[in-house]
Amino acid sequence: MSHKMPKGPDFFVRHRMLLEQAEAATEHRDHWTPYPESPSKSLYGEDAAERGEAAFRSRINARFELPGHPRDGWVASGETSPYGFPLGVIYPRITPDVAVAAAKEAVPAWRGAGPDVRAGVAAEILARLNAASFEIAHAVQHTTGQAFVMAFQAGGPHAQDRGLEAVAYAWSEQKRHPASARWRKPQRKGGPLVMDKRFTPVGRGVSLLIACNTFPTWNSYPGLFASLVTGNPVVVKPHPGAVLPLAITVRIAREVLAEAGFDPNLVVLVAEEPGDRSAGFLALHPDVRIIDFTGSTEFGDWLEANARQAVVYTEKAGLNTVVLDSTDDYQGLLGNLAFSLALYSGQMCTTPQNLLIPREGMATDQGVRTADEFAADLAAALDRLLADPARAVGTLGALVNDGVRERLTQAEQLGRTVREAVRVEHPEYPAAEVRTPLVARLDAEADQKTYAREWFGPVFFVVGTDSTEHSLRIFEETVRTHGALTAIVHSTSEEVLKTAEEAALDAGVHLAENLTGGVFVNQSAAFSDFHGSAANPAASATLSDPAFVTGRFATLQSRRPVTVEEPAHV
Amino acid sequence: MSHKMPKGPDFFVRHRMLLEQAEAATEHRDHWTPYPESPSKSLYGEDAAERGEAAFRSRINARFELPGHPRDGWVASGETSPYGFPLGVIYPRITPDVAVAAAKEAVPAWRGAGPDVRAGVAAEILARLNAASFEIAHAVQHTTGQAFVMAFQAGGPHAQDRGLEAVAYAWSEQKRHPASARWRKPQRKGGPLVMDKRFTPVGRGVSLLIACNTFPTWNSYPGLFASLVTGNPVVVKPHPGAVLPLAITVRIAREVLAEAGFDPNLVVLVAEEPGDRSAGFLALHPDVRIIDFTGSTEFGDWLEANARQAVVYTEKAGLNTVVLDSTDDYQGLLGNLAFSLALYSGQMCTTPQNLLIPREGMATDQGVRTADEFAADLAAALDRLLADPARAVGTLGALVNDGVRERLTQAEQLGRTVREAVRVEHPEYPAAEVRTPLVARLDAEADQKTYAREWFGPVFFVVGTDSTEHSLRIFEETVRTHGALTAIVHSTSEEVLKTAEEAALDAGVHLAENLTGGVFVNQSAAFSDFHGSAANPAASATLSDPAFVTGRFATLQSRRPVTVEEPAHV
Repeated sequence: MSHKMPKGPDFFVRHRMLLEQAEAATEHRDHWTPYPESPSKSLYGEDAAERGEAAFRSRINARFELPGHPRDGWVASGETSPYGFPLGVIYPRITPDVAVAAAKEAVPAWRGAGPDVRAGVAAEILARLNAASFEIAHAVQHTTGQAFVMAFQAGGPHAQDRGLEAVAYAWSEQKRHPASARWRKPQRKGGPLVMDKRFTPVGRGVSLLIACNTFPTWNSYPGLFASLVTGNPVVVKPHPGAVLPLAITVRIAREVLAEAGFDPNLVVLVAEEPGDRSAGFLALHPDVRIIDFTGSTEFGDWLEANARQAVVYTEKAGLNTVVLDSTDDYQGLLGNLAFSLALYSGQMCTTPQNLLIPREGMATDQGVRTADEFAADLAAALDRLLADPARAVGTLGALVNDGVRERLTQAEQLGRTVREAVRVEHPEYPAAEVRTPLVARLDAEADQKTYAREWFGPVFFVVGTDSTEHSLRIFEETVRTHGALTAIVHSTSEEVLKTAEEAALDAGVHLAENLTGGVFVNQSAAFSDFHGSAANPAASATLSDPAFVTGRFATLQSRRPVTVEEPAHV
Repeated sequence: MSHKMPKGPDFFVRHRMLLEQAEAATEHRDHWTPYPESPSKSLYGEDAAERGEAAFRSRINARFELPGHPRDGWVASGETSPYGFPLGVIYPRITPDVAVAAAKEAVPAWRGAGPDVRAGVAAEILARLNAASFEIAHAVQHTTGQAFVMAFQAGGPHAQDRGLEAVAYAWSEQKRHPASARWRKPQRKGGPLVMDKRFTPVGRGVSLLIACNTFPTWNSYPGLFASLVTGNPVVVKPHPGAVLPLAITVRIAREVLAEAGFDPNLVVLVAEEPGDRSAGFLALHPDVRIIDFTGSTEFGDWLEANARQAVVYTEKAGLNTVVLDSTDDYQGLLGNLAFSLALYSGQMCTTPQNLLIPREGMATDQGVRTADEFAADLAAALDRLLADPARAVGTLGALVNDGVRERLTQAEQLGRTVREAVRVEHPEYPAAEVRTPLVARLDAEADQKTYAREWFGPVFFVVGTDSTEHSLRIFEETVRTHGALTAIVHSTSEEVLKTAEEAALDAGVHLAENLTGGVFVNQSAAFSDFHGSAANPAASATLSDPAFVTGRFATLQSRRPVTVEEPAHV
């Protein structure tokens, strides 16, 4: 490359073994993670928790400084903690045009650095994000409403896992072809034709990350790191309700980039006030060539239809489905399902919504349970799980925003409630809006319009069907039409499981089976489980796989004849 | 899989070593091919040439039978040989809806077969296509106008190379993740959480192949085989002017599929009369989920804008460019370039059009040659190359259709001709329209509108610029805006070559340097050179790389708990 390599610490050498392990993990798909999920002192250090909380507190009601970041003023995002207080953070203001131009200018040296250097820088960013997990956890808790331990895990180490996974795929795919090769074509007469060829991975262009309110880091890190490692600068556009976790992320990324000798504007933050429309402007900018989006089906569809100059990776809404046929562990099923529904008040894109069960019931180790009986049993299991308010808030978290609250009110007005969503007093944050799940009892035929749309939040439908066959048909049709990120079937029959697996392949959704223990359908493990399938309307991306990274770069080739070939080195 | 595996010969076992070699070749990028490019008896058999010609002759003025193919009548494509006679072949008629439905019905068993079986079947199809290379060569010659040897090479073994390359990538990417994995997550207390996971590659849906007039097999095989091996049925829609080479291909593919026990409708032919609009109807069919297209920018852009339900891989028009700075082998340069321009009368998507040279000239081993002198020298080199009509027709072939003829007339009317396109009498086919290249002398500033669009055919522009720096700027700007499939620079200065390489990376085009011998800029070698970069407007695809196959399938996952884990095998 003609670009002079920037000077700085050799992060690739530092992290090479980690990268190789991560790449191997994507191939083996056993459990693997370098970032401990437990917020324990023995793992993160004696005072990590305290320092993280102090760092978070110091950000409240203050300007968030990003050294060297372009800025034409300051903007208040208006973030409010779902636990009941305004964050009052002020961020640099920047117009879409300036953001894209600054990002674009940073490209040449980054392109010249090559995949190894880029992967090394990314791994260092992740190491520092991991060290900041407590600070990020508080920022995630107070923008999303997640309970602290979940905010730590999903916002910290699990998000970092997904980031590293994207780094591994991006690094691996760029190494799929050699940096150079010698081509020798034998000729009938005389010596061979000989050419030297060079292959250079080149990023597609400025990458735009449009993040969501509920998982600002977890859903963003794959796109952020996939783009960065494939040679693209990234403009980060957080949801106005959850800026802080990504501002901290951007700050750390810029620090590492600058230390490594690169232009920190390879990662730029566009914070906005609620009601600003910068996402739409950014998405149509001709220099924006990659978009990662998590959010509503409406805006995701708009992006896919209008941002034609870019490759667009979306995660939108869906109808996550449970098919209940039979079980030999009914209590395990109820406990597992109750926790899946209660966790973060159903505000996960992976939480099941529609529970399909034959009206006449499912066979269990405690006898046949009709659809009505199952709905009552599930309600009771939720009551048991959430009986103690102090423990309940640790599972439920708080409702993220008014949209979820309004949807809950709508669900109540359906008049089919089996279990009410009751308010839980948070011992620490009395103003927090904490609600338990609402379970309603619907019918497959009569209520099709109700359950065939997403009710994001703690709203769950026990849907009575004619039979398991009928349930599987509804499952396949609704998921193929409306999408889903997860699905689960409970059956003791190998034949039903096989049929469900075929239905899931037809519908294009990943399937979990017979979860009754400590693994939950709404949780996926990086390096082993795919998140999203890109095979149904809920998502055009998986986080991550090769398809998630190959569209972000091209391998450009140059070739020149070798006139006098030196003898091969022996 | 719940589908019973079809019975038939085990083509995977037969071709496994070939597939492994092909996969390795995509990684090493040295010269490699299993299909000899020379139409010699020692390689293809004593009577292969005769049998191939006889097979072709037997197709003329006859019904083209496709056993088991859906059909509601017969259609005459109206194919006419550019060498001056109608082919008179009659093909099965089929409506777009019936074609897509038949293809879709064939999917389940093909999905259940898995990547190995699919790759084995594809390799067998390619082996039989290779054996039919002479028949296909005649069909290609008399639909495209290519001279026989070129029709043999580009339509036969080189197309088969590109097909096998796509098979290798498709097979490889589907093996990127294991078919199954056991996941063990250690717990603080008690034994680990254990899950068994299965990963199944699933095709995206019906694949539509819209082929072109000039390279019906070479440009089609990558998409055809990439889709087939990733589990998708393929609807083949040939250009009305070049149906026969693909009809032969479809026939062979269907034979092998049926022998292997699969539904032959995994590959369906939609032949049409000129003026039919089946491509547009097919492209918008909701079940068509993949489109491969080679042809005009206009229709390619329409597909990208309108076929929103599909992933669309296009190869469109571009401005292939030569940058002339300096050379130490001027005669080699002229000879190499003259052949590049003359080959198939410039009707290759890879033929250079714009030759950028400083008005004041380039340094050569024969002194400085001004732009005017270079244009005259190039004209003289073309004269020498094409002096003998019998040999000239073997290089030039015939003009493929009226569009090219009309463009040539337009170019003549520019009034800037340095070398006229003269008619050459074909010794064997007196009615063939054979024309030598037209060279016109343009100016970078004054004639920008003329050279900044594609003149597909034997029309070439020597464009005078201010300097090499100016040439490189025009190169970068025109290619970034209008696209290109190839580019070449001639320079003795390592610095200029480096600058040109950076310009090519910026423009997103592959670059050849200093070609003066037996390698030509318009020829690319499968397994070593990429065709197209997907990094400029000329093409959204390379034929082939991982990005060309990863969008054609999803890897769907199922997982279930392992309750009683057996001890690991030692």
